[in-house]
Amino acid sequence: MEIGRKVWAIAEGYIPSQSCSSDRALTSHETACILNPGNRDAQVTITVYFADREPAGPYHLAVPARRTCHVRFNDLDDPEPIPRDTDYTSVLQSDVSVVVQHTRLDSRRAEIALLSTMAYSQA
Amino acid sequence: MEIGRKVWAIAEGYIPSQSCSSDRALTSHETACILNPGNRDAQVTITVYFADREPAGPYHLAVPARRTCHVRFNDLDDPEPIPRDTDYTSVLQSDVSVVVQHTRLDSRRAEIALLSTMAYSQA
Amino acid sequence: MEIGRKVWAIAEGYIPSQSCSSDRALTSHETACILNPGNRDAQVTITVYFADREPAGPYHLAVPARRTCHVRFNDLDDPEPIPRDTDYTSVLQSDVSVVVQHTRLDSRRAEIALLSTMAYSQA
Amino acid sequence: MEIGRKVWAIAEGYIPSQSCSSDRALTSHETACILNPGNRDAQVTITVYFADREPAGPYHLAVPARRTCHVRFNDLDDPEPIPRDTDYTSVLQSDVSVVVQHTRLDSRRAEIALLSTMAYSQA
Repeated sequence: MEIGRKVWAIAEGYIPSQSCSSDRALTSHETACILNPGNRDAQVTITVYFADREPAGPYHLAVPARRTCHVRFNDLDDPEPIPRDTDYTSVLQSDVSVVVQHTRLDSRRAEIALLSTMAYSQA
Repeated sequence: MEIGRKVWAIAEGYIPSQSCSSDRALTSHETACILNPGNRDAQVTITVYFADREPAGPYHLAVPARRTCHVRFNDLDDPEPIPRDTDYTSVLQSDVSVVVQHTRLDSRRAEIALLSTMAYSQA
Repeated sequence: MEIGRKVWAIAEGYIPSQSCSSDRALTSHETACILNPGNRDAQVTITVYFADREPAGPYHLAVPARRTCHVRFNDLDDPEPIPRDTDYTSVLQSDVSVVVQHTRLDSRRAEIALLSTMAYSQA
Repeated sequence: MEIGRKVWAIAEGYIPSQSCSSDRALTSHETACILNPGNRDAQVTITVYFADREPAGPYHLAVPARRTCHVRFNDLDDPEPIPRDTDYTSVLQSDVSVVVQHTRLDSRRAEIALLSTMAYSQA
């Protein structure tokens, strides 16, 4: 049985430039958690949309069969980095079915805040 | 391929009147993050529902093709502002397919709290 | 156009007994935010499930046409109150289409934490 | 009427090894909240996926009819415990329809942070 879908969208996106910690685990970050539960490797492309310019990307990544990949938007840099303190959104497209969840850890203040939601998936 | 839907609902809504910071980024706020991934500009109308009065709106906004718009409910004022410290909900309708995510940043206390969820979309 | 569905489920449920504030807005609480966007009043029944006993309820409430109702599980008491510090889940059934979102404000510690998600809706 | 689905996926997963409290309620943890609203007991299997090794599991659990089970991933240990400070994801499969919601309580810092979302369900 195939689990997941091939097109996902995350409408919220914002990476705070500030962090109270330099520990990578506690640095302010946004993540797309991608699960590839199937038996074929997934080729995923990410397109990033902004308020006032043409989209960035596509960013390419591979998620091997039966693996998960938690991609930090902070780490994307090819073809260009994602700007900080800037509203964006993203669309993920995969050649095989995957599942995508969106999470932000915000450590602008001394205590962290978290948000998470399953992404929107296209039937 | 067309991504998204034309009708979205956010059942939770509450803008705290208090904020520990006057920095716009850290002021208590609620946002509807709208992605228009298509090639036609979107005309979006927002209707806001309350517990004990007729709905407010419609509020009108445009989201250009291939752009995102993170709308703060705090900033809506035509035809009327959204009251603070008041339960509300919202329905967004677009003439082209979009994706909508709901986020609140709450800074009533010294440390911020966050919540987010994809909105409910009508098939 | 009719927006929403008639059956919703919230699988998470937990009301902390502790709060750092006696202010009602900042007391630890769980809420089902119900939107009735249609032109007919909604009769909603809530059934609450536990780990080790038969379900409680049904709890009855009405959501007028074009209104929202943010129900605190803390306030339900007929036929019986929801116990604190206890895992539960809930199913909401309505005679007309509604939209349901789940939110918790947790103020066990000095700073609040928030979670929210659209409930699961049955096609 | 049958409520729920038989296949669910949670793409995010991360159990912090640190907690500021030794109180079980406030220890950093991840939970899958499973509701079995039907009249037949559910046999649920959980498979856990990682970034760089084959999946763990299946983990087996039973959710009786008309009951909820809030499973902490921290507590899974047969066939093996879930490693801390490690990205993972999970797929839940049930022989009867259930509803699944994902929650994390993070208490690495003095104040807790929460996230929650309905899991992705397969039609």
